Amino acid sequence: MSSEEQIKKDEYYMGRALAMAEEAFEKGEVPVGAVIVCRDRIISRAHNLTEALTDVTAHAEMQAITMSANELGGKYLQDCTLYVTVEPCIMCAGALGWSQIKRIVYGCSDDKRGFSLHAPKALHPKTVVTKGVREEECKALMQRFFKERR
Amino acid sequence: MSSEEQIKKDEYYMGRALAMAEEAFEKGEVPVGAVIVCRDRIISRAHNLTEALTDVTAHAEMQAITMSANELGGKYLQDCTLYVTVEPCIMCAGALGWSQIKRIVYGCSDDKRGFSLHAPKALHPKTVVTKGVREEECKALMQRFFKERR
Repeated sequence: MSSEEQIKKDEYYMGRALAMAEEAFEKGEVPVGAVIVCRDRIISRAHNLTEALTDVTAHAEMQAITMSANELGGKYLQDCTLYVTVEPCIMCAGALGWSQIKRIVYGCSDDKRGFSLHAPKALHPKTVVTKGVREEECKALMQRFFKERR
Repeated sequence: MSSEEQIKKDEYYMGRALAMAEEAFEKGEVPVGAVIVCRDRIISRAHNLTEALTDVTAHAEMQAITMSANELGGKYLQDCTLYVTVEPCIMCAGALGWSQIKRIVYGCSDDKRGFSLHAPKALHPKTVVTKGVREEECKALMQRFFKERR
């Protein structure tokens, strides 16, 4: 696959994650959305549900990891790519580390809670990270949420 | 409460966490157990279930956090103490950070996966950590597991 094809594919799947984030927004949840892709198929999609579930662990990524493992029938996600609108936090990065996921693509950075600042070694050493895909849209959704709702 | 009373109490609750870890051991799970205590009452207890649930996120602490929030009807655990037999990993420490838990007491350290090495700032700044409670028992159970089962 050419790098141009890869970019198009990444933008497409990030659009699917953005759609999940918009669903979260409509429900009054911090708008973070995620999809996990395995061999060109979306095997799970989730958005943040911490308010509805009254559970700090109900981040989009955590749910997507659990759903993907159920779907695949195995704990490890070595053939999978996570697309998530916002940089994973320490908790989610730790979970992604355990999952040995192949690749993580995120939209905008989280300078306060993102893993790259406080837990840069959380991920599995083989995991490849791409950031900044559809960054402005991901960021704009978060900014609009915190301006309107909080 | 005198510090002697506190030590006795910590040892008692760690014993309850150890009982959970032993249950995990019997089921072929990595033997880590946890209880969460709120105002002298155990509000949740859990052990590692990553094998049974085929889910890397099913650590004892994660389940205990979710159960405690359900029990209390709120996301935050500011009045709670977690007793866990082994030092939390990065994922669990990140979750504990979000929960704003008051205090964490753990048995033995995890020099490979423990949060204190790779994510020392994962916890909420107000969270107090006590380590080394019934350390030898917690450690012996882990060592026996990896010797016999892996």
